[in-house]
Parts: sequence; structure tokens; C-alpha cells
Amino acid sequence: MIKKQYLMIPGPTMVPERILRAMVREMINHRGPEFTKILTAVTEGVKKCFKTKNDLFIIPSSGTGGMEAAVVNILSEGDEVLVLNIGAFGSRWTKILKAYRANVDEIKFARGTAADVETVEKKLKSKKYSAVFFQQNETSTGVLNDVQSLAQVIKKYDTLIVVDAVSGLITADLRTDEWGLDVVVAASQKAFMLPPGLSFVSFSKKAWQYYEKSKMPRFYWDFKSMKDWADKGQNPFTPPVSLYYGLEESLKMIDEEGLENIFERHKKLRDITRDGLKKLNLKLLASDDVASCAVTAVFPPENINADDLRKKVKQNYSVVLAGGQEDLKGKIFRIGHLGYCLETDIMVSLDAISKCL
Amino acid sequence: MIKKQYLMIPGPTMVPERILRAMVREMINHRGPEFTKILTAVTEGVKKCFKTKNDLFIIPSSGTGGMEAAVVNILSEGDEVLVLNIGAFGSRWTKILKAYRANVDEIKFARGTAADVETVEKKLKSKKYSAVFFQQNETSTGVLNDVQSLAQVIKKYDTLIVVDAVSGLITADLRTDEWGLDVVVAASQKAFMLPPGLSFVSFSKKAWQYYEKSKMPRFYWDFKSMKDWADKGQNPFTPPVSLYYGLEESLKMIDEEGLENIFERHKKLRDITRDGLKKLNLKLLASDDVASCAVTAVFPPENINADDLRKKVKQNYSVVLAGGQEDLKGKIFRIGHLGYCLETDIMVSLDAISKCL
Repeated sequence: MIKKQYLMIPGPTMVPERILRAMVREMINHRGPEFTKILTAVTEGVKKCFKTKNDLFIIPSSGTGGMEAAVVNILSEGDEVLVLNIGAFGSRWTKILKAYRANVDEIKFARGTAADVETVEKKLKSKKYSAVFFQQNETSTGVLNDVQSLAQVIKKYDTLIVVDAVSGLITADLRTDEWGLDVVVAASQKAFMLPPGLSFVSFSKKAWQYYEKSKMPRFYWDFKSMKDWADKGQNPFTPPVSLYYGLEESLKMIDEEGLENIFERHKKLRDITRDGLKKLNLKLLASDDVASCAVTAVFPPENINADDLRKKVKQNYSVVLAGGQEDLKGKIFRIGHLGYCLETDIMVSLDAISKCL
Repeated sequence: MIKKQYLMIPGPTMVPERILRAMVREMINHRGPEFTKILTAVTEGVKKCFKTKNDLFIIPSSGTGGMEAAVVNILSEGDEVLVLNIGAFGSRWTKILKAYRANVDEIKFARGTAADVETVEKKLKSKKYSAVFFQQNETSTGVLNDVQSLAQVIKKYDTLIVVDAVSGLITADLRTDEWGLDVVVAASQKAFMLPPGLSFVSFSKKAWQYYEKSKMPRFYWDFKSMKDWADKGQNPFTPPVSLYYGLEESLKMIDEEGLENIFERHKKLRDITRDGLKKLNLKLLASDDVASCAVTAVFPPENINADDLRKKVKQNYSVVLAGGQEDLKGKIFRIGHLGYCLETDIMVSLDAISKCL
């Protein structure tokens, strides 16, 4: 039987044929002028997506590697840090920070809600933190944090702001410089419409001041080394060349559609998805005011197991949905609607879910 | 003007069209059964290339990431370690180890020579080391260490053996289990004939005992986490899916040609390269008895700058050669002859060099 897959998970996302084809090119010397040209151009292109003039590093790693790089370049063992945990990727910040022996305080918000600005400010008043870590978009719950308001408050306390925008970037506006975000992390396999394998991290002047004092051990993730090599138009270590070819094409497509139009498309996809699910009488994890533009988390009807439903939808219609993480494992399913995703993909997905229920 | 590139550098190497095409496939769920099948199969395939039944991890990173993973999973701050430094990648072991605050002793051998077994044994007698680090093949000088003899001696001193086989694996025999190598690192962009982006690390039972005592901070590189996820047929973090597709095809090609035949091909390529260069009256950095099967380092005639010659060869014939590293920068050039490389590529390269001299 032939199949036609609809990959409706929040990453890896579907890759347009244009990008797949762009990746089919012979290797080149990563220390030669041809590669320098590509590296320079894609770095500028990714900066535009971050809305930043800060340094930006492209790292051969998954998104989590970018998060680890963000941690080890600004902190020392024992530093006091705060994590705003609204889901599994908030917990990931905590795990990385604890692995490197920072002193972590965590505010855990109910799953399906965003970080509450007043609660955060109260905590910041009670103790001096070196840095605050949170998500733009929490992939595990489908919640979009109000990054701008959070940043506005955190900045008052002379604290570094570190944002994991891996699943959120390009699905919703994020203004790194205007909002004063010191370190922002993204990755290739989300709204950049690329296969996984690259992470992106922007690093502010203030973050560089932290770098100077930071004593956490680092080599592969060291931003100073990346900067020194970038000044020569190269990477410290061999870059995943084929993904750079894909990134060139991805940035062209983003430029053609326009960032603001892409934000609008993602908003529309989110609204269509949520409307359709509500019409099926399904309960959504996040309320409308904090709903993610990248992924929607849904409870199945009470008598139905989320993972059984996912299996059936996949078997019958090749629509691939994501499951729940942490406490939500087996209890919810998630529909990714980011990157190379259009209304027609949502139409198929909703209809497939409806028919399988 | 149309061009036909000959990428004669020691990585990234030329990628066969079969592998490029294999990579052009839609993304799949990295937590679904289809990916588990691929992960399980390629892990077994890479183990065969390592000649090992040890655990083997495939990491989204460059080869240096695999080296860092090897370090942080076995050691604690202050551990006494020994590096056998025969070139720039020996220095890289030292830099990583120092970044993580191990106490590093280094034996520096003259560039162009291999690590001398007697010198190593003398050092091992003088002090107890937790681990010894060295290269199978030193990319910067084109020297192949006698891994078997080194391992035989080191094993007598109850010391962990860690081998960087990034540029050497598959170009020359390496018997991880038979020779008792505890940790071996390789990467995708060398004789595996793939684009860069994956590193491979094998980890012995004895290495796991070291892991239990090891206190270096780690999260992204943590092998216990990789093993727990591997037992479920998954990776802890999103894997570079398209490179896994390529790896499937690469392992098929390796299997079709046969490992022992591949070693023979690389020996022949080395010998043809060296004979041709000698006929051009060029001085080789490494002597015949320690000559690498992956890369040959060459001095240009006295009145010619190595980098000028490389530029000319590239401009006139699109033959891309590598330059020197560290102290050898500008003094030598290097010809990579590994991976998807045949006698005809060497014929073109030698003739191009000859005509440009």
C-alpha cells in the first residue's frame, strides 16, 4: 500500500522539496572561501529571524546542545539561577543547570498555563539571581509565554535573560534586541523547515560580560572560540555542510514569504486547529490567551487513551501526532502546526482525528 | 566556466551520489517505530566498522564533540591523564582535558613520527594515570600510530585506553575489542563518506566502571542517558534524521565492498600517492613505516609556498588540497585519500600538482 505521510509533530517538521534538493550538493572545504561565503550569509539571515544584531553562533548539535551552550558560557558552579518551568522543556533547563552545579530555584506553573509575571517579580524581589531561564514556546504543553512582559520585569533586577525559542521562533514574533533578550536558542528542525542537526544561539554584549567571569568548563560549546573562528569566516570544528546548504534555501523561503506573514500564517493555523478540535468537543490543555502558534495539546474523550488514538490516526491516515511528555504521557496528544505546514494539512489532520474517534 | 571539483582534503570527504540521494527523504517522527528500526540497524552497522560489541553511541555533533563526550564520561577534575601528542589532534585532546581540569601530562613526539612505544612505557612506569589518550591516525601530519602495540603496553598499567579514530577508522584496521580499546571516537565525514554532523563513540565495560566514579559535569554528552534512551530505541535529543538515512546507505556500500577490501584500497591509494610525490622529488613529512592510509603531508620545493601552490592547483584544476596546521601552517600541504576516493582521483591530483610546480 502506498502512503502519504502528514508529519504533524512539533519537530522534526516537514521539509519542503526545495530544501531537500538544496541539500543534495557535493561537499566543499569547510576552511575554504566558498564555505566562508555561505557561513557569513546564513549567519546574517538567521540574525534577521532573531531580530538581533548580537553575535549569533550556528552549532552542530540538536537544540538541547544550544541550551547547554547557553548555560556554560555565562555561569559558574554555585551561581544562583531561576527557571520558569511551564513544562518538560522548563525541566530541561533545570536538569542542564543542575548537571553543571548551578543553584537552581524553579517556579513551577500549572501545565497548560504560562509563566505569571507577578509571581516571577515576587521571586526576583526575594533573591538576587545571575540569570533567569524560560521558554518562548513550551513544546510539551502548547503554551506561548509572554516573553516581552517577562523580559520587561526581569530586566529591572539586573539579571541575564535566557530564552529557549527552539520551537517558537518564526512561529511567533520574538524581538531579541528590542526586548533585551541576552541569550536566545533556536534549532533547525522547527519552523526553519530543515532536518535536525543545527542549533542557533544569539549572545548579547551583557552576556559577554558574564562570559568573562564564567568558570564552567567548556570546549565544544565555547563561544569565544566560535567568535574567533567566525572572525576568520570559519567554524572551530567541522560544520554539517549539507544542512548549511539547506539553511541557505530555508532563509530564501522565509525571506520570500516575509517574517510577519509567517507569524500570521502560524496564528491562523493555530486558530483553525483549536476551532476544529473544539467542534469535536475535545478539551484543550492551554486556554486561548496563552495558546501556542507551533503546537496544540489536546485531551482525548474520557474513555479513549491518547496513544491508542494516535496509533489509529497514523495507521488509517498516515497522520503522525505527538504524545504527551512527563506527567502528561498517555493523557494528551499534540498536533504540531509549524514550519512547512498549511491549512490543508490541518484539514486532513482534524478530519482524520474526527473519523477515528 | 564549468568546474569539476576533486575534494582531496582529509574531511569532509566526497559523498557518493547514492548517499546524497538516500538523504533526500521526508522527515519521520524520531520517537516512532520507523526511526527505531533505523537507529538499531545503523548502530549495529557502525559497531561492525569498529569491530566491537561494546555500547556505541551516535551523537549529533562534529568529531570533536565525540572526543569531548569521551572525556567527560570517564573522568573527574584533577584526574591524572596522559596524552600521546603526535600532532594538532593530540593537542586537541590536551585542550579538552585541560578545559575540564584534568591533570594532563603530554608526551610530544616530533611531527611526522608516531608515538614510540618504549617512551610511552617509561612514562607509564613513572606515574599512575587514569587514562591515556591518543590518535589512531593523526590528520595534521599523516601519521598512523601502531594502536595495537600501544594498547598492549598501556593495558599492563590498568589504565583506560581512549582512541581518536575520527580520520583513521575504515582506512586502516582497528580492532576495538581484540586490542582492548575502551573508548573509540569516529565521525561521519571521513571514510564513512557522509556529510559532517554525526560522531560515533564506543564505550567498554571497563569504561562504564570509570563512568560510575566520574564527576565531570555533563548533560548533552551523558552516555547513561544515551544508553537508557537507546534501550527504548530512541535518542535523548532530536537526531539529525537525514544523516541517519545517509548512514544507512553508507553502511550498505561498506558492506558491499567489504572492510578488508576497503583497507586494501586505502593502502593502495596511500602507496600510489607517496610514489607519485616522490617521483616529483617532493619530501614527505612521514616516513613509509608510519604513513597514514587517510592523508599524506608533503613539503613543497624550497622556493615555493605551500599555500600558493594549493591555490594554483585549485584555480587551474579544481583539485582542493588541505594546508598545514599549528607549526606546519604554510609549510606543508596535505592530500586526503580516504572515503569515496579512487586511483583516478589520485592520478588527477598528482598530475595537477606536477603541472603547477
